[in-house]
Amino acid sequence: MTPTSTLPAPARGPADHDVRDQIVAAATEHFSRYGYGKTTVSDLAKAIGFSKAYIYKFFESKQAIGEMICANCLRQIEAEVSASVAEASLPPDKLRRIFKASTEATLRLLFQDRKLFEIAASAATERWQAVVDYEERTRQLLRDVLQEGRQSGDFERKTPLDETVLAIHLVMRPYLNPLLLQHSMDSTDQAPALLASLVLRSLSP
Amino acid sequence: MTPTSTLPAPARGPADHDVRDQIVAAATEHFSRYGYGKTTVSDLAKAIGFSKAYIYKFFESKQAIGEMICANCLRQIEAEVSASVAEASLPPDKLRRIFKASTEATLRLLFQDRKLFEIAASAATERWQAVVDYEERTRQLLRDVLQEGRQSGDFERKTPLDETVLAIHLVMRPYLNPLLLQHSMDSTDQAPALLASLVLRSLSP
Repeated sequence: MTPTSTLPAPARGPADHDVRDQIVAAATEHFSRYGYGKTTVSDLAKAIGFSKAYIYKFFESKQAIGEMICANCLRQIEAEVSASVAEASLPPDKLRRIFKASTEATLRLLFQDRKLFEIAASAATERWQAVVDYEERTRQLLRDVLQEGRQSGDFERKTPLDETVLAIHLVMRPYLNPLLLQHSMDSTDQAPALLASLVLRSLSP
Repeated sequence: MTPTSTLPAPARGPADHDVRDQIVAAATEHFSRYGYGKTTVSDLAKAIGFSKAYIYKFFESKQAIGEMICANCLRQIEAEVSASVAEASLPPDKLRRIFKASTEATLRLLFQDRKLFEIAASAATERWQAVVDYEERTRQLLRDVLQEGRQSGDFERKTPLDETVLAIHLVMRPYLNPLLLQHSMDSTDQAPALLASLVLRSLSP
Protein backbone atom coordinates (compact mmCIF):
# COMPACT_ATOMS: atom_id res chain seq x y z
CA MET A 1 0.00 0.00 0.00
CA THR A 2 1.63 3.23 -1.08
CA PRO A 3 0.78 6.41 0.77
CA THR A 4 -0.87 7.86 -2.33
CA SER A 5 -3.64 5.30 -1.97
CA THR A 6 -4.29 5.91 1.72
CA LEU A 7 -3.54 9.58 2.31
CA PRO A 8 -5.11 12.59 0.67
CA ALA A 9 -2.81 13.53 -2.19
CA PRO A 10 -0.69 16.55 -1.26
CA ALA A 11 -0.31 19.34 -3.80
CA ARG A 12 2.64 18.32 -5.93
CA GLY A 13 4.67 19.77 -8.75
CA PRO A 14 5.27 17.91 -12.00
CA ALA A 15 8.67 16.72 -10.74
CA ASP A 16 7.26 14.86 -7.69
CA HIS A 17 7.16 11.58 -9.53
CA ASP A 18 10.83 11.94 -10.34
CA VAL A 19 11.70 12.77 -6.75
CA ARG A 20 9.85 9.67 -5.55
CA ASP A 21 11.76 7.56 -8.06
CA GLN A 22 14.99 9.17 -6.95
CA ILE A 23 14.29 8.38 -3.29
CA VAL A 24 13.33 4.80 -4.13
CA ALA A 25 16.46 4.28 -6.24
CA ALA A 26 18.72 5.67 -3.51
CA ALA A 27 16.90 3.68 -0.83
CA THR A 28 17.21 0.47 -2.83
CA GLU A 29 20.94 1.04 -3.08
CA HIS A 30 21.21 1.93 0.60
CA PHE A 31 19.11 -0.98 1.90
CA SER A 32 21.00 -3.40 -0.37
CA ARG A 33 24.22 -2.34 1.26
CA TYR A 34 23.25 -1.71 4.89
CA GLY A 35 20.08 -3.75 5.37
CA TYR A 36 16.45 -2.77 5.72
CA GLY A 37 15.76 -3.59 9.36
CA LYS A 38 18.48 -1.50 10.92
CA THR A 39 18.23 1.55 8.66
CA THR A 40 16.07 4.48 9.83
CA VAL A 41 14.56 7.21 7.66
CA SER A 42 17.15 9.56 9.23
CA ASP A 43 20.00 7.29 8.05
CA LEU A 44 18.42 7.20 4.62
CA ALA A 45 17.98 10.98 4.49
CA LYS A 46 21.59 11.51 5.46
CA ALA A 47 22.80 9.04 2.83
CA ILE A 48 20.70 10.56 0.05
CA GLY A 49 21.44 14.12 1.08
CA PHE A 50 17.78 15.05 1.59
CA SER A 51 16.20 16.22 4.82
CA LYS A 52 14.10 13.74 6.73
CA ALA A 53 11.12 16.11 6.43
CA TYR A 54 11.56 16.19 2.65
CA ILE A 55 11.44 12.39 2.44
CA TYR A 56 8.32 12.39 4.60
CA LYS A 57 6.70 14.70 2.05
CA PHE A 58 6.80 11.78 -0.37
CA PHE A 59 6.58 8.67 1.83
CA GLU A 60 4.70 8.33 5.07
CA SER A 61 7.13 5.78 6.52
CA LYS A 62 10.15 3.60 5.88
CA GLN A 63 7.75 0.77 5.09
CA ALA A 64 6.12 2.86 2.35
CA ILE A 65 9.56 3.11 0.70
CA GLY A 66 10.13 -0.62 1.31
CA GLU A 67 6.78 -1.38 -0.30
CA MET A 68 7.72 0.58 -3.39
CA ILE A 69 11.03 -1.29 -3.64
CA CYS A 70 9.22 -4.57 -3.11
CA ALA A 71 6.61 -3.73 -5.75
CA ASN A 72 9.37 -2.83 -8.24
CA CYS A 73 11.17 -6.07 -7.51
CA LEU A 74 8.01 -8.15 -7.97
CA ARG A 75 7.23 -6.31 -11.21
CA GLN A 76 10.67 -7.23 -12.47
CA ILE A 77 10.13 -10.90 -11.61
CA GLU A 78 6.82 -10.79 -13.44
CA ALA A 79 8.38 -9.10 -16.47
CA GLU A 80 11.01 -11.85 -16.70
CA VAL A 81 8.39 -14.58 -16.36
CA SER A 82 6.17 -12.93 -19.00
CA ALA A 83 9.10 -12.60 -21.38
CA SER A 84 9.94 -16.28 -20.98
CA VAL A 85 6.31 -17.38 -21.38
CA ALA A 86 5.98 -15.22 -24.51
CA GLU A 87 8.74 -17.27 -26.18
CA ALA A 88 6.63 -20.43 -25.96
CA SER A 89 3.58 -21.22 -28.06
CA LEU A 90 2.21 -24.39 -26.45
CA PRO A 91 0.47 -24.22 -23.05
CA PRO A 92 2.54 -27.07 -21.48
CA ASP A 93 5.74 -25.28 -22.47
CA LYS A 94 4.35 -22.02 -21.04
CA LEU A 95 3.63 -23.73 -17.74
CA ARG A 96 7.16 -25.16 -17.55
CA ARG A 97 8.53 -21.70 -18.19
CA ILE A 98 6.45 -20.19 -15.39
CA PHE A 99 8.05 -22.64 -12.94
CA LYS A 100 11.58 -22.16 -14.23
CA ALA A 101 11.62 -18.41 -14.86
CA SER A 102 9.88 -17.43 -11.65
CA THR A 103 12.27 -19.51 -9.54
CA GLU A 104 15.30 -18.13 -11.32
CA ALA A 105 14.17 -14.51 -11.21
CA THR A 106 13.18 -14.74 -7.53
CA LEU A 107 16.51 -16.32 -6.65
CA ARG A 108 18.49 -13.72 -8.50
CA LEU A 109 16.60 -10.67 -7.31
CA LEU A 110 16.23 -11.65 -3.68
CA PHE A 111 19.20 -13.83 -2.87
CA GLN A 112 22.04 -12.54 -4.96
CA ASP A 113 21.98 -9.68 -2.50
CA ARG A 114 20.80 -10.92 0.90
CA LYS A 115 20.05 -7.37 1.97
CA LEU A 116 17.12 -7.09 -0.43
CA PHE A 117 15.98 -10.47 0.87
CA GLU A 118 15.33 -8.69 4.15
CA ILE A 119 12.70 -6.43 2.55
CA ALA A 120 11.16 -9.41 0.77
CA ALA A 121 11.01 -11.36 4.03
CA SER A 122 9.27 -8.47 5.82
CA ALA A 123 6.89 -8.14 2.88
CA ALA A 124 6.05 -11.85 2.92
CA THR A 125 5.73 -12.09 6.72
CA GLU A 126 3.52 -9.01 7.03
CA ARG A 127 1.76 -9.74 3.71
CA TRP A 128 2.23 -6.26 2.26
CA GLN A 129 -0.30 -5.27 -0.38
CA ALA A 130 2.32 -5.60 -3.14
CA VAL A 131 2.74 -9.27 -2.21
CA VAL A 132 -1.00 -9.95 -2.09
CA ASP A 133 -1.37 -8.31 -5.52
CA TYR A 134 1.61 -10.22 -6.93
CA GLU A 135 0.21 -13.54 -5.76
CA GLU A 136 -3.12 -12.74 -7.34
CA ARG A 137 -1.45 -11.81 -10.63
CA THR A 138 0.56 -15.06 -10.54
CA ARG A 139 -2.65 -17.02 -10.12
CA GLN A 140 -4.15 -15.02 -12.99
CA LEU A 141 -1.22 -15.94 -15.24
CA LEU A 142 -1.68 -19.61 -14.30
CA ARG A 143 -5.40 -19.30 -14.96
CA ASP A 144 -4.78 -17.83 -18.42
CA VAL A 145 -2.34 -20.58 -19.40
CA LEU A 146 -4.64 -23.28 -18.01
CA GLN A 147 -7.63 -21.89 -19.89
CA GLU A 148 -5.61 -21.76 -23.09
CA GLY A 149 -4.53 -25.38 -22.54
CA ARG A 150 -8.11 -26.45 -21.84
CA GLN A 151 -9.25 -24.84 -25.06
CA SER A 152 -6.42 -26.35 -27.11
CA GLY A 153 -7.14 -29.80 -25.65
CA ASP A 154 -3.72 -30.03 -23.98
CA PHE A 155 -5.20 -29.99 -20.47
CA GLU A 156 -8.08 -31.82 -18.79
CA ARG A 157 -11.30 -29.88 -18.16
CA LYS A 158 -12.95 -31.89 -15.37
CA THR A 159 -11.34 -30.28 -12.32
CA PRO A 160 -12.75 -26.85 -11.39
CA LEU A 161 -10.35 -24.26 -12.81
CA ASP A 162 -10.02 -22.39 -9.51
CA GLU A 163 -9.01 -25.58 -7.70
CA THR A 164 -6.35 -26.33 -10.29
CA VAL A 165 -4.98 -22.78 -10.11
CA LEU A 166 -4.84 -22.84 -6.32
CA ALA A 167 -3.17 -26.26 -6.15
CA ILE A 168 -0.52 -25.39 -8.73
CA HIS A 169 0.20 -22.12 -6.94
CA LEU A 170 0.68 -24.11 -3.71
CA VAL A 171 3.11 -26.44 -5.49
CA MET A 172 5.15 -23.40 -6.59
CA ARG A 173 5.13 -21.70 -3.18
CA PRO A 174 8.51 -23.01 -1.91
CA TYR A 175 10.18 -21.38 -4.92
CA LEU A 176 8.23 -18.10 -5.00
CA ASN A 177 7.86 -17.16 -1.36
CA PRO A 178 11.23 -15.94 0.00
CA LEU A 179 10.51 -17.33 3.49
CA LEU A 180 10.25 -20.84 2.04
CA LEU A 181 12.80 -20.33 -0.72
CA GLN A 182 15.56 -19.60 1.80
CA HIS A 183 15.08 -23.19 3.05
CA SER A 184 14.72 -24.67 -0.45
CA MET A 185 18.09 -23.69 -1.87
CA ASP A 186 19.25 -27.31 -2.15
CA SER A 187 16.49 -28.11 -4.60
CA THR A 188 16.22 -25.01 -6.81
CA ASP A 189 18.17 -26.70 -9.62
CA GLN A 190 16.02 -29.80 -9.97
CA ALA A 191 12.73 -29.15 -8.23
CA PRO A 192 11.06 -26.64 -10.58
CA ALA A 193 11.41 -29.03 -13.54
CA LEU A 194 10.35 -32.09 -11.51
CA LEU A 195 7.33 -30.26 -10.11
CA ALA A 196 6.35 -28.83 -13.49
CA SER A 197 6.42 -32.39 -14.90
CA LEU A 198 4.25 -33.67 -12.07
CA VAL A 199 1.81 -30.78 -12.58
CA LEU A 200 1.70 -31.44 -16.34
CA ARG A 201 0.91 -35.11 -15.67
CA SER A 202 -1.91 -33.93 -13.39
CA LEU A 203 -3.29 -31.83 -16.26
CA SER A 204 -3.29 -34.52 -18.93
CA PRO A 205 -6.76 -34.92 -20.42
CA MET B 1 23.74 -39.94 15.10
CA THR B 2 23.73 -41.25 18.65
CA PRO B 3 27.03 -41.60 20.49
CA THR B 4 26.66 -45.39 20.49
CA SER B 5 27.16 -45.40 16.75
CA THR B 6 30.26 -43.20 16.71
CA LEU B 7 32.06 -43.87 19.99
CA PRO B 8 33.36 -47.19 21.32
CA ALA B 9 30.63 -48.49 23.61
CA PRO B 10 31.61 -47.98 27.26
CA ALA B 11 31.09 -50.83 29.69
CA ARG B 12 27.49 -50.50 30.81
CA GLY B 13 25.22 -52.19 33.30
CA PRO B 14 21.83 -53.55 32.32
CA ALA B 15 20.12 -50.39 33.59
CA ASP B 16 21.99 -48.06 31.21
CA HIS B 17 19.22 -48.14 28.67
CA ASP B 18 16.77 -47.04 31.32
CA VAL B 19 19.06 -44.22 32.45
CA ARG B 20 19.35 -42.97 28.85
CA ASP B 21 15.55 -43.03 28.52
CA GLN B 22 15.25 -41.22 31.83
CA ILE B 23 17.65 -38.47 30.70
CA VAL B 24 15.85 -38.11 27.36
CA ALA B 25 12.44 -37.91 29.03
CA ALA B 26 13.65 -35.28 31.52
CA ALA B 27 15.44 -33.36 28.76
CA THR B 28 12.34 -33.39 26.55
CA GLU B 29 10.33 -31.93 29.42
CA HIS B 30 13.04 -29.37 30.20
CA PHE B 31 13.62 -28.26 26.58
CA SER B 32 9.86 -28.01 26.02
CA ARG B 33 9.62 -25.60 28.89
CA TYR B 34 12.85 -23.60 28.66
CA GLY B 35 13.95 -24.01 25.04
CA TYR B 36 16.73 -25.98 23.44
CA GLY B 37 19.10 -23.26 22.29
CA LYS B 38 19.62 -21.52 25.61
CA THR B 39 19.80 -24.63 27.80
CA THR B 40 23.26 -26.04 28.60
CA VAL B 41 24.07 -29.58 29.74
CA SER B 42 24.79 -28.05 33.18
CA ASP B 43 21.29 -26.56 33.33
CA LEU B 44 19.89 -29.90 32.31
CA ALA B 45 21.96 -31.79 34.90
CA LYS B 46 20.80 -29.44 37.63
CA ALA B 47 17.16 -29.81 36.59
CA ILE B 48 17.29 -33.60 36.43
CA GLY B 49 19.32 -33.91 39.61
CA PHE B 50 22.20 -35.76 37.93
CA SER B 51 25.80 -34.61 37.76
CA LYS B 52 26.99 -33.20 34.46
CA ALA B 53 29.67 -35.92 34.33
CA TYR B 54 27.00 -38.60 34.76
CA ILE B 55 25.02 -37.25 31.80
CA TYR B 56 28.20 -37.18 29.71
CA LYS B 57 28.62 -40.89 30.49
CA PHE B 58 25.52 -41.47 28.38
CA PHE B 59 25.50 -38.63 25.82
CA GLU B 60 28.53 -37.00 24.27
CA SER B 61 26.81 -33.62 23.88
CA LYS B 62 23.59 -31.69 24.20
CA GLN B 63 23.02 -32.32 20.49
CA ALA B 64 23.22 -36.08 21.08
CA ILE B 65 20.32 -35.71 23.52
CA GLY B 66 18.53 -33.43 21.07
CA GLU B 67 19.00 -36.01 18.34
CA MET B 68 17.42 -38.69 20.49
CA ILE B 69 14.44 -36.42 21.23
CA CYS B 70 14.19 -35.59 17.53
CA ALA B 71 14.36 -39.26 16.52
CA ASN B 72 11.63 -40.13 19.05
CA CYS B 73 9.46 -37.33 17.73
CA LEU B 74 9.92 -38.41 14.11
CA ARG B 75 9.16 -42.03 15.05
CA GLN B 76 5.92 -40.86 16.62
CA ILE B 77 4.95 -38.96 13.46
CA GLU B 78 5.70 -42.07 11.41
CA ALA B 79 3.69 -44.27 13.76
CA GLU B 80 0.66 -41.99 13.39
CA VAL B 81 1.02 -41.92 9.60
CA SER B 82 1.38 -45.71 9.44
CA ALA B 83 -1.67 -46.20 11.65
CA SER B 84 -3.71 -43.93 9.38
CA VAL B 85 -2.47 -45.62 6.18
CA ALA B 86 -3.24 -49.05 7.66
CA GLU B 87 -6.92 -48.08 7.93
CA ALA B 88 -7.16 -47.66 4.15
CA SER B 89 -7.18 -50.43 1.60
CA LEU B 90 -6.94 -48.61 -1.72
CA PRO B 91 -3.66 -46.95 -2.78
CA PRO B 92 -5.25 -43.55 -3.62
CA ASP B 93 -6.81 -43.44 -0.17
CA LYS B 94 -3.47 -44.40 1.38
CA LEU B 95 -1.76 -41.54 -0.43
CA ARG B 96 -4.34 -39.04 0.77
CA ARG B 97 -3.83 -40.29 4.31
CA ILE B 98 -0.05 -39.83 4.06
CA PHE B 99 -0.59 -36.14 3.19
CA LYS B 100 -3.20 -35.56 5.88
CA ALA B 101 -1.77 -37.57 8.76
CA SER B 102 1.82 -36.41 8.34
CA THR B 103 0.79 -32.75 8.26
CA GLU B 104 -1.42 -33.14 11.31
CA ALA B 105 1.12 -35.14 13.33
CA THR B 106 3.97 -32.73 12.45
CA LEU B 107 1.84 -29.74 13.40
CA ARG B 108 0.80 -31.23 16.70
CA LEU B 109 4.19 -32.53 17.78
CA LEU B 110 6.28 -29.54 16.72
CA PHE B 111 4.00 -26.54 16.98
CA GLN B 112 1.67 -27.25 19.85
CA ASP B 113 4.74 -26.52 21.94
CA ARG B 114 7.02 -24.04 20.16
CA LYS B 115 9.94 -25.08 22.35
CA LEU B 116 10.17 -28.50 20.71
CA PHE B 117 9.98 -26.72 17.37
CA GLU B 118 13.38 -25.29 18.26
CA ILE B 119 14.97 -28.76 18.30
CA ALA B 120 13.20 -29.67 15.06
CA ALA B 121 14.42 -26.46 13.42
CA SER B 122 18.04 -27.18 14.45
CA ALA B 123 17.65 -30.75 13.21
CA ALA B 124 16.29 -29.61 9.84
CA THR B 125 18.82 -26.79 9.38
CA GLU B 126 21.81 -28.95 10.27
CA ARG B 127 20.31 -32.04 8.64
CA TRP B 128 20.82 -34.34 11.62
CA GLN B 129 21.03 -38.03 10.77
CA ALA B 130 17.58 -38.67 12.28
CA VAL B 131 16.12 -36.23 9.74
CA VAL B 132 17.97 -37.74 6.78
CA ASP B 133 16.76 -41.21 7.83
CA TYR B 134 13.20 -40.00 8.35
CA GLU B 135 13.10 -38.42 4.90
CA GLU B 136 14.37 -41.62 3.37
CA ARG B 137 11.74 -43.68 5.19
CA THR B 138 9.02 -41.24 4.05
CA ARG B 139 10.15 -41.72 0.45
CA GLN B 140 10.12 -45.49 1.04
CA LEU B 141 6.54 -45.33 2.28
CA LEU B 142 5.57 -43.32 -0.81
CA ARG B 143 7.43 -45.83 -3.01
CA ASP B 144 5.55 -48.75 -1.43
CA VAL B 145 2.15 -47.13 -1.91
CA LEU B 146 3.01 -46.11 -5.47
CA GLN B 147 4.18 -49.61 -6.33
CA GLU B 148 1.03 -51.09 -4.88
CA GLY B 149 -1.05 -48.64 -6.93
CA ARG B 150 0.89 -49.44 -10.09
CA GLN B 151 0.24 -53.13 -9.54
CA SER B 152 -3.45 -52.63 -8.82
CA GLY B 153 -3.82 -50.48 -11.93
CA ASP B 154 -4.80 -47.38 -9.91
CA PHE B 155 -1.64 -45.46 -10.89
CA GLU B 156 0.17 -44.88 -14.20
CA ARG B 157 3.40 -46.82 -14.83
CA LYS B 158 5.14 -44.69 -17.46
CA THR B 159 7.01 -42.23 -15.24
CA PRO B 160 10.14 -43.66 -13.57
CA LEU B 161 9.15 -44.61 -10.02
CA ASP B 162 12.04 -42.71 -8.44
CA GLU B 163 11.07 -39.51 -10.23
CA THR B 164 7.48 -39.83 -9.02
CA VAL B 165 8.60 -40.49 -5.45
CA LEU B 166 10.95 -37.51 -5.45
CA ALA B 167 8.41 -35.13 -6.97
CA ILE B 168 5.65 -36.12 -4.53
CA HIS B 169 8.05 -35.75 -1.61
CA LEU B 170 8.88 -32.23 -2.87
CA VAL B 171 5.16 -31.41 -3.02
CA MET B 172 4.81 -32.48 0.63
CA ARG B 173 7.90 -30.60 1.85
CA PRO B 174 6.15 -27.39 3.03
CA TYR B 175 4.03 -29.51 5.40
CA LEU B 176 6.74 -31.91 6.64
CA ASN B 177 9.80 -29.72 7.06
CA PRO B 178 9.37 -27.51 10.15
CA LEU B 179 11.37 -24.65 8.56
CA LEU B 180 8.81 -24.43 5.75
CA LEU B 181 5.82 -25.45 7.85
CA GLN B 182 6.24 -22.44 10.15
CA HIS B 183 5.53 -20.26 7.08
CA SER B 184 2.72 -22.48 5.78
CA MET B 185 0.37 -22.28 8.75
CA ASP B 186 -2.29 -20.39 6.76
CA SER B 187 -2.72 -23.31 4.39
CA THR B 188 -2.45 -26.40 6.61
CA ASP B 189 -6.23 -26.86 6.65
CA GLN B 190 -6.79 -26.92 2.89
CA ALA B 191 -3.46 -27.53 1.22
CA PRO B 192 -2.78 -31.19 2.07
CA ALA B 193 -6.11 -32.28 0.53
CA LEU B 194 -5.71 -29.98 -2.51
CA LEU B 195 -2.17 -31.20 -3.12
CA ALA B 196 -3.10 -34.86 -2.61
CA SER B 197 -5.83 -34.41 -5.24
CA LEU B 198 -3.39 -32.82 -7.67
CA VAL B 199 -0.88 -35.64 -7.06
CA LEU B 200 -3.60 -38.26 -7.57
CA ARG B 201 -4.56 -36.64 -10.89
CA SER B 202 -0.88 -36.80 -11.87
CA LEU B 203 -0.92 -40.55 -11.11
CA SER B 204 -4.00 -41.44 -13.12
CA PRO B 205 -3.20 -44.16 -15.67
